[in-house]
Amino acid sequence: MGSIYGKIFQISTFGESHGAAVGVVVQGCPSGIDFDLDFIQSELDRRKPGQSRITTQRKEADSIEVLSGVFEGKTTGTPIAMLVWNGDQRSKDYSHISDQFRPSHADYTYFAKYGLRDYRGGGRSSARETVARVAAGALAKLVLNQLGVKISAYVSQVGKLKLNTPVEQLDLSLTENNAVRCPDPKLAEEMFTYIDEIRKQGDSVGGVVSAYIQGCPVGLGEPVFDKLHAELGKAMLSINAVKGFEYGSGFDGVALKGSEHNDIIVKDAETGEIKTLTNHSGGIQGGISNGEPIYFRVGFKPVATIMQDQDSLNEKGEKITVSGKGRHDPCVVPRAVPIVEAMAAIVLLDFYLRNKLIQLSAL
Amino acid sequence: MGSIYGKIFQISTFGESHGAAVGVVVQGCPSGIDFDLDFIQSELDRRKPGQSRITTQRKEADSIEVLSGVFEGKTTGTPIAMLVWNGDQRSKDYSHISDQFRPSHADYTYFAKYGLRDYRGGGRSSARETVARVAAGALAKLVLNQLGVKISAYVSQVGKLKLNTPVEQLDLSLTENNAVRCPDPKLAEEMFTYIDEIRKQGDSVGGVVSAYIQGCPVGLGEPVFDKLHAELGKAMLSINAVKGFEYGSGFDGVALKGSEHNDIIVKDAETGEIKTLTNHSGGIQGGISNGEPIYFRVGFKPVATIMQDQDSLNEKGEKITVSGKGRHDPCVVPRAVPIVEAMAAIVLLDFYLRNKLIQLSAL
Amino acid sequence: MGSIYGKIFQISTFGESHGAAVGVVVQGCPSGIDFDLDFIQSELDRRKPGQSRITTQRKEADSIEVLSGVFEGKTTGTPIAMLVWNGDQRSKDYSHISDQFRPSHADYTYFAKYGLRDYRGGGRSSARETVARVAAGALAKLVLNQLGVKISAYVSQVGKLKLNTPVEQLDLSLTENNAVRCPDPKLAEEMFTYIDEIRKQGDSVGGVVSAYIQGCPVGLGEPVFDKLHAELGKAMLSINAVKGFEYGSGFDGVALKGSEHNDIIVKDAETGEIKTLTNHSGGIQGGISNGEPIYFRVGFKPVATIMQDQDSLNEKGEKITVSGKGRHDPCVVPRAVPIVEAMAAIVLLDFYLRNKLIQLSAL
Amino acid sequence: MGSIYGKIFQISTFGESHGAAVGVVVQGCPSGIDFDLDFIQSELDRRKPGQSRITTQRKEADSIEVLSGVFEGKTTGTPIAMLVWNGDQRSKDYSHISDQFRPSHADYTYFAKYGLRDYRGGGRSSARETVARVAAGALAKLVLNQLGVKISAYVSQVGKLKLNTPVEQLDLSLTENNAVRCPDPKLAEEMFTYIDEIRKQGDSVGGVVSAYIQGCPVGLGEPVFDKLHAELGKAMLSINAVKGFEYGSGFDGVALKGSEHNDIIVKDAETGEIKTLTNHSGGIQGGISNGEPIYFRVGFKPVATIMQDQDSLNEKGEKITVSGKGRHDPCVVPRAVPIVEAMAAIVLLDFYLRNKLIQLSAL
Repeated sequence: MGSIYGKIFQISTFGESHGAAVGVVVQGCPSGIDFDLDFIQSELDRRKPGQSRITTQRKEADSIEVLSGVFEGKTTGTPIAMLVWNGDQRSKDYSHISDQFRPSHADYTYFAKYGLRDYRGGGRSSARETVARVAAGALAKLVLNQLGVKISAYVSQVGKLKLNTPVEQLDLSLTENNAVRCPDPKLAEEMFTYIDEIRKQGDSVGGVVSAYIQGCPVGLGEPVFDKLHAELGKAMLSINAVKGFEYGSGFDGVALKGSEHNDIIVKDAETGEIKTLTNHSGGIQGGISNGEPIYFRVGFKPVATIMQDQDSLNEKGEKITVSGKGRHDPCVVPRAVPIVEAMAAIVLLDFYLRNKLIQLSAL
Repeated sequence: MGSIYGKIFQISTFGESHGAAVGVVVQGCPSGIDFDLDFIQSELDRRKPGQSRITTQRKEADSIEVLSGVFEGKTTGTPIAMLVWNGDQRSKDYSHISDQFRPSHADYTYFAKYGLRDYRGGGRSSARETVARVAAGALAKLVLNQLGVKISAYVSQVGKLKLNTPVEQLDLSLTENNAVRCPDPKLAEEMFTYIDEIRKQGDSVGGVVSAYIQGCPVGLGEPVFDKLHAELGKAMLSINAVKGFEYGSGFDGVALKGSEHNDIIVKDAETGEIKTLTNHSGGIQGGISNGEPIYFRVGFKPVATIMQDQDSLNEKGEKITVSGKGRHDPCVVPRAVPIVEAMAAIVLLDFYLRNKLIQLSAL
Repeated sequence: MGSIYGKIFQISTFGESHGAAVGVVVQGCPSGIDFDLDFIQSELDRRKPGQSRITTQRKEADSIEVLSGVFEGKTTGTPIAMLVWNGDQRSKDYSHISDQFRPSHADYTYFAKYGLRDYRGGGRSSARETVARVAAGALAKLVLNQLGVKISAYVSQVGKLKLNTPVEQLDLSLTENNAVRCPDPKLAEEMFTYIDEIRKQGDSVGGVVSAYIQGCPVGLGEPVFDKLHAELGKAMLSINAVKGFEYGSGFDGVALKGSEHNDIIVKDAETGEIKTLTNHSGGIQGGISNGEPIYFRVGFKPVATIMQDQDSLNEKGEKITVSGKGRHDPCVVPRAVPIVEAMAAIVLLDFYLRNKLIQLSAL
Repeated sequence: MGSIYGKIFQISTFGESHGAAVGVVVQGCPSGIDFDLDFIQSELDRRKPGQSRITTQRKEADSIEVLSGVFEGKTTGTPIAMLVWNGDQRSKDYSHISDQFRPSHADYTYFAKYGLRDYRGGGRSSARETVARVAAGALAKLVLNQLGVKISAYVSQVGKLKLNTPVEQLDLSLTENNAVRCPDPKLAEEMFTYIDEIRKQGDSVGGVVSAYIQGCPVGLGEPVFDKLHAELGKAMLSINAVKGFEYGSGFDGVALKGSEHNDIIVKDAETGEIKTLTNHSGGIQGGISNGEPIYFRVGFKPVATIMQDQDSLNEKGEKITVSGKGRHDPCVVPRAVPIVEAMAAIVLLDFYLRNKLIQLSAL
């Protein structure tokens, strides 16, 4: 359990880090979508290891293969299965940890829960499973693009280096221009240098990915438990290494007064559209989108794998030393940007579809 | 849609702020639980309005009534329906806003989504629906108590007044001793005074509720999407006015290095239990509980209802002035404490049940 | 578990035969439906005991009460809670069976499954829970009516007395004219006499309810597991005392050849509509409605409660005699007619809503 | 939607008849199961085309490939993805029907529902998708075997040739000895001859598959909607070409009196076990298994594909002649036997797991 997500646009993922393949079956994708395989591959390439010297040097081709649900270039409305074969597995890299519990990894909890575990590269707990998220998210993006919804994520913090510019003043088209995926070129350079230092220390560091969603129609999100931001929060928190989620004014909004925080509703003099003067609500009110841009922040911890010796236990409960080996990311946020976008796309499309069922007059 | 929560211990809630009743049908509650109605009522009393002058002065008896699923004092394994009749409704208080969109409320989004809305007291979007959460959560607590799990929430911030003491050094038995529900008596007084000032200004202010869970067994939570903290995050974010969620080291952990953040695994010399020296993980690794205390923080915005005039629009799109009337909370966090506990209980019990199905040897 | 049904139009039911109330929370009902309480009550009246001397003589007012989700006569899109208070409970009628396992009842299986049970009138296993189905089904009918879908059920067999007239030659408006709910007045009389004899013998007898659905649009039903007839089958089989379900040609179709069974597709010369010359398919092909009338048969066993002494065991495993007492139906099918219609309505509306999400061009 | 089945042991299937592959992702399979790939392959071989001259002559190797969830020969508790590549596709066989609606096929309904369709061999509506069911069902059987549950299906009717021997008097070990899969060798021969005649006529004929389940523990099944037989019914009705389902006394039970039909409960003098003297209940009472053998019958129509010319329409609504080509089964029931077993296994394991959550004392 745990590997299914979504209610209408529903994905079921599978695969271990060093198993045969990782993949996803997408249920509930509408028929008639132009299936742009190149776009899906390009999203996977954004997530791929080995993009620069500050990401893991593992080489994985990560070529997407489509097994079903597409006919003559269009989705047919039936399940779409996609997978990526695991190439550069190097399982022997991990044989030395076959009975070790690495600190702050999922080794111990998986072992305790299941009674056994695929220890190679973290098995199912590895961030390699995000390949499936990015593939499914790319498909969701294809649909959302046709509906006018645009999702942009970017790195807004690495360690203590924080981007303080309001998102409206950023040029988000610059995000993909640097290896860090920070739209402020100067700060991006500082971040790069800092991550590279951390890498040389054999250490790791955390960061924040921010997301900004434009063109989302009014009405997405459901009352009570399935509020739009609640589901976005779950989606983000389910990504490996995420420790926090906030949207709109977030934790900073706590210290404000209602009279400062409330977003005054006005009518645009020209277009006649209803909008708000400020957007502390982050585009969501009462759990339902109000047409303003949606924005949120996702906090990632420093990844647990470091190239240093650490005390720990093995499966027998004996004291051991876990020594840092293998090839890992010193800072996960640059590669997390497409993953955040993918999960946001999956949530938004699911809610888009759920919202079609609401009014009698629309049936 | 949106009013069902949980996979095994599954709740279906209903009710508008000024409708006949609010309530819940609980599916999947195990049979044989001693059904302690007094305890459930006492939890509702902690949530009830009118507890002090810093909470809304609405008078609601909020007496719980049980319609099914209990026989001779024990749960029977069949659905348990519970409801609270809405007493002090004063619907006329709201007639003046029948076509108004109050700023940062859900009036506009509900109207746009559904084409009509129950405007009385916010209808379904009112925090009155949390009555159902607290009732279901109290039932979950009854089960968890028998399983040794203890959930404690408390107010850790009001506006800029922040409790910085680590939770291990707090005496959480003091939480219920003051109207603010802050376990630090001195800070609680400051917070009370501050909220009272805000109240006199006709304004509102935000705050933070922290939660601390002891006795949670190893193994709760599912890989990938249904990580324990992801579901806790969704549960908390679904509570009215919540803007952020973080667990363990949270957003502060972002700035740490892996070598600082990793929790070293050790064996307790006396008990032989596996534990960690630090707990930046917040009791959850790879989405699965590791037996350490679980802790998290939930950020609440200042509530949107204030006793001041604000510009806005009505349903026709005409400019209006929304004037502050009615009886509302200047700061929502004191009454949110039992709600946070309730949602945590619902999530934990659901995952407890899901975890029973994992190993062949346990079947 | 087990008391939730539907994916979009989703009902959650509760209540024991002799508990406080039976009821339902309906999630996912579209907003803007004219909520006709009288119609819902009239459907419950069709199911009510005591309608004639061939149904149980229990007196139950079965007045429906609506607690939420309706405002100014229209559904609001939020959960609709409805309940019926249990009036004429006479619990003492059942005290003598508190530890008895009645033959072919659910007494033993509930006790074994849950470790305890509400023995009064069968508790949750009583057909009294169908009150909730009929209420929710009536609501579904209100929506379907506006969409042009008409569901008619009728009694087509009692014991060996079988209605052989093809449905197209029946006048279904006659169904409600007699206590048996058989549209053939002459056969209805014979059936009435037969059931009355069975009643006098203190025995019971089975029967068949047939259903006929007109106006169902093309496209309802989902491929593979959620085929329209598969879900209709589950819905019918979930009704108390049902032993079999067949649609279209059913079990008789087994003996046909493909060349006899296939429904030739033609275009209506006048309307230009696509239809089939015969309808062995029962209006469903590949699990998806094709626009032809949908029809199916539901077989009910003789109810287990009879007014005769029977050998059995009690909870301790001791031999006992179960003596027939209480007030029960000698033949369940006349009162099952509205229940079959209700379940059909719930399934069809759910599939109607699910079908809105299919094509990109419809989003 | 529609391709996901089960609540805990949950399968998500994919694949078209002439796409790249058909497969399944199984979620919720317990960890620690000995994964017997040979057994799974042997089940697929029972379903495979080309087993005798009365089944389709298509040649498909149908080799199962496992992509995830298994490590060192055991299930790990994570999703198990299995697939079969489509080999002998011969897509050109179908080019002539690319715009044709074949009578009593799903061509028209899929086209109407989705706006386009993969016409090759029926695409997703082809019975080829049952490969995924059999693979997942074989896995479920592996678990059930360890729990002592044995599922046996067999052909009990072909056309009008009907097996009337009660199941208790049959030697079910003979089922696999003949191409028809009828445990009565003499009748099997008659059936074979009859099917072969039908084949020579270019026609098809229907049949019935019966199932018999031994060793099912007391307590499987949930009250109200998820009754064990209701879910079994849905599972069977979801198989291609199925028109009816009955369990226990079935439609024949309709004509019985309660005094004849009730199963008297007794204690076995030797074992002390509670059992019933007769088993009209079919092993299920109140929707919950009572420990007696479960048995049911599944009616299959004659398959729609025949080797004869038939009138029909094309996508433009023009009159055409559909001519019989390709390679198909004159009678589907011999190959349906393993499919019925597979679906029964999936349902039973899912309910087995759901039943572990019931009593507090078991938590």
